[in-house]
Amino acid sequence: MPNSQPSKHTIHARHHHHGWDNAIAPVLTVAPGETVTFETIDSSGGQLSPESTLDDLKALDFGKVNPVTGPVFVDGAEPGDALVVRLEGFAPSGWGWTANIPGFGLLADRFPDPALHLWRYDPGTLAPALFGPGGKVPLKPFAGTIGLAPAEPGPHSVVPPRPCGGNMDVRDLAAGTTLYLPVQVEGALFSVGDTHAAQGDGEVCGTAIESPMTVTLAFDLVKGANIGTPRLTTPGPVARHLDGEGYEVTTGIGPDLMTGARDAVMRMIDLLCRRHNMAPVDAYMLCSVCADLRISEIVDQPNWVVALYFPRIVLA
Amino acid sequence: MPNSQPSKHTIHARHHHHGWDNAIAPVLTVAPGETVTFETIDSSGGQLSPESTLDDLKALDFGKVNPVTGPVFVDGAEPGDALVVRLEGFAPSGWGWTANIPGFGLLADRFPDPALHLWRYDPGTLAPALFGPGGKVPLKPFAGTIGLAPAEPGPHSVVPPRPCGGNMDVRDLAAGTTLYLPVQVEGALFSVGDTHAAQGDGEVCGTAIESPMTVTLAFDLVKGANIGTPRLTTPGPVARHLDGEGYEVTTGIGPDLMTGARDAVMRMIDLLCRRHNMAPVDAYMLCSVCADLRISEIVDQPNWVVALYFPRIVLA
Repeated sequence: MPNSQPSKHTIHARHHHHGWDNAIAPVLTVAPGETVTFETIDSSGGQLSPESTLDDLKALDFGKVNPVTGPVFVDGAEPGDALVVRLEGFAPSGWGWTANIPGFGLLADRFPDPALHLWRYDPGTLAPALFGPGGKVPLKPFAGTIGLAPAEPGPHSVVPPRPCGGNMDVRDLAAGTTLYLPVQVEGALFSVGDTHAAQGDGEVCGTAIESPMTVTLAFDLVKGANIGTPRLTTPGPVARHLDGEGYEVTTGIGPDLMTGARDAVMRMIDLLCRRHNMAPVDAYMLCSVCADLRISEIVDQPNWVVALYFPRIVLA
Repeated sequence: MPNSQPSKHTIHARHHHHGWDNAIAPVLTVAPGETVTFETIDSSGGQLSPESTLDDLKALDFGKVNPVTGPVFVDGAEPGDALVVRLEGFAPSGWGWTANIPGFGLLADRFPDPALHLWRYDPGTLAPALFGPGGKVPLKPFAGTIGLAPAEPGPHSVVPPRPCGGNMDVRDLAAGTTLYLPVQVEGALFSVGDTHAAQGDGEVCGTAIESPMTVTLAFDLVKGANIGTPRLTTPGPVARHLDGEGYEVTTGIGPDLMTGARDAVMRMIDLLCRRHNMAPVDAYMLCSVCADLRISEIVDQPNWVVALYFPRIVLA
């Protein structure tokens, strides 16, 4: 990739859309090599604010969630190419929210009641953010939803990620990372949103530290790459903001990875509640913003091991 | 846990057993607080050696694989307790093997032919070990199989891990880690084996750097802990031997975690083959010993993201 140019374009937050649709008109056309700055709206679509209460969460209109800013038409992008997206930087807002939204999340059956935690953090220093019920969470801003319009015509929900990207919630889509997205339509039609100040692998309660930010990206193209699904390259370590004190690790063992993941998370919630006198839903939300789901082994038939890694620095 | 005492006991490799069975007589009885040194046999049960060829792999007798050294009876351990196992240290042998064994591994359908790679490494410095087809793999010795006899009578295969542990292949069961195992029978009946010089999360081809070692452990008990499945505490970072140059990351996206894991691994194999001119089976074995399977998100219904993180330092 050539060295990127300074950002000459800003797409303001009013240029957002709900869901993916290749019929949505682009708001900007760029050439490969160009840099663009995007303002994003938080994943509530502006329905929650730093002053919100549980009543605001209960009143959430799901038709307005997860807006993405864009789309951008990239000159020369054609189906089969990879759109290269270099994540140049994030300018975070300093506030965020984490919620348990009924019906949503890995343990939705166990946590039927809504819960909301509001965060304040220093957008300059990005010092670990205080979690009211206990703990300080190291921050690493990234884009939860980042992707391209699918080839299939018509509107598509923004909730599930797809082979052309979208709501992937890969927490290493942070500053410095280069993302490769499979192009399915002419011009790629790129959009970004759902920015997070921190998240663990899995995003187990269904939300991270949901936080509006401004994101600066540089685009390029690899012609005929045919990569199938998104891939990324990180320029360096991905967990050094979290790993200094090691981890508490719980496991789920059995023939189903989903059940294993649920078991590992439930056991970590039990451990945090017992040890730190935390309410279960608070432990669940805390795991969502900092603990990582890993597959320790997937070959010792018929039982797999899924492990949840909780960084001890959070509660040190 | 009290400070452990110097190891007063050594269990030699001839004291091994195949499979778990609570009727196997203990070879040693210890009190909580005691330290024991275990010699282990490699997971081929001694059928492979530093001079082995593919013919030896083809002749492998599966009845002899994965022997574990033990069992040890821990005084006072009763069902419902947690056996605390502090991993004090590993004395590695300096050789190991990685194989694609037909019918075994995440992509067994794609890789029907046997393949074998023999490793030599410096057991003193543990400098990264050379992989013939390309790459140098950072080492971190750990115990792949570590567990207790199950309550259910009779013999049980050693291959699948269980709620009382066993073949968990959690690559952070390394020196310094403390493991908590659910006790199901009086005396716990602890055994260990299947030591690995390195492995990625997932152990995707079914084998790691399989390497005999001597392991020193200290035991303790938490009465009535009722932890359900194994958990562990790591005293510090778990991936700093790997993460210095960042990662190449491929993804699998869809409604089934197993399919997602397979897709992510297949795409990494494609990437390594294209970029480093490696044979697919070599790329598969290399992923098994150093690349990590993570669940990036498990909540954006109906599609989950499984990611394979390949440490760039291996091919830098």
